[in-house]
Amino acid sequence: MAAAQKHRQAIIDAAVDLFRRQGYSGTGLNDVVRASGAPKGSLYHYFPHGKASIAEAAVLEAGTRVADTVRELSGKAASTGDLVKSHAQLLAGWMTKSGWKDGSPVTTVILEMAPENDAVTEAGRQVFAAWRREIQNHLVTDGFDDLRAERLAFLCTAVIEGALVQSRVEKSGQPLLTASEELAQLLAAAAKQQPITLPPTAGSPG
Amino acid sequence: MAAAQKHRQAIIDAAVDLFRRQGYSGTGLNDVVRASGAPKGSLYHYFPHGKASIAEAAVLEAGTRVADTVRELSGKAASTGDLVKSHAQLLAGWMTKSGWKDGSPVTTVILEMAPENDAVTEAGRQVFAAWRREIQNHLVTDGFDDLRAERLAFLCTAVIEGALVQSRVEKSGQPLLTASEELAQLLAAAAKQQPITLPPTAGSPG
Repeated sequence: MAAAQKHRQAIIDAAVDLFRRQGYSGTGLNDVVRASGAPKGSLYHYFPHGKASIAEAAVLEAGTRVADTVRELSGKAASTGDLVKSHAQLLAGWMTKSGWKDGSPVTTVILEMAPENDAVTEAGRQVFAAWRREIQNHLVTDGFDDLRAERLAFLCTAVIEGALVQSRVEKSGQPLLTASEELAQLLAAAAKQQPITLPPTAGSPG
Repeated sequence: MAAAQKHRQAIIDAAVDLFRRQGYSGTGLNDVVRASGAPKGSLYHYFPHGKASIAEAAVLEAGTRVADTVRELSGKAASTGDLVKSHAQLLAGWMTKSGWKDGSPVTTVILEMAPENDAVTEAGRQVFAAWRREIQNHLVTDGFDDLRAERLAFLCTAVIEGALVQSRVEKSGQPLLTASEELAQLLAAAAKQQPITLPPTAGSPG
């Protein structure tokens, strides 16, 4: 990675970490520069619009990480319920390790800045859409039709996002684990009730 | 209400409104005083610990409103699924009216301040517990046993909280409505599968 690109990425990574712990307004530009290790003068070079454009980049970066994580977990999950449970377990583990300081930078920054800041609002929209797409794909594999899968993806992502806030105040993974386990149980029951569509058999008689 | 109590309440109400739109760090004490109409000097009289104690009071106030709202909706709802749907509809309506500026002051303030600030963290814990209690009561009425109702209450509250963030970036009630409708459908199917426990019949023969 070229030095310029490296500094830009270091600034974004530092912003993701800081926003996750203390939000957008609570984080000063000096904190971001200091944590990033990038030269002080470089910040406005990479982000000419200053802090708001760093927030946009941080939301997109955090969103890419969420989608990557969910895609990776998806490959190992037997069902969407398993996928949501394993995501909840992972988040609970990360939060425990951080002393319950880490939240979701996406949620915090969005609640502070959307809908006034168009770029951050649009970044948030892209992040949730990418996350839902991963969930939706797995729901189709479970046997749900496209429309139901699209709708259930809103439910599954909302559960993780909302339970994370409760885990933070409880300083416990229990809300994340309980909400995801109950969702998995409801989804498993609903998947069983789906009509099974067999693919047309090539070369079948008649 | 005595004048003193009236000013205190006006400060809390103004803080709830402002934190909901722009978060804790993004709101100055002067903004709160100005919006409240309370005498400038009165703020430290009512809140000697300053902004952090206003945040604590605002989280508790917002939480009381949530629990009151859910209790009122609960009286008219035929099932917990109906209750969650009507709550989602109400929130979607309020958010539309505010131009999608209103979020949840509870979530925003918690994500900014918990777990570092013990009083706010504890206030957040109380708010979610009171909200879950209302949901849990309705789940028991639906026929779920106490343990399952307690666990499902984490799921139901997480769905509303998480979908609200997605509605804010979409500037649309659709995520709230879709997530709550899908949850209601899953809950209705699960409620049907609960074993029906009949109360012992007094004076039955034998």
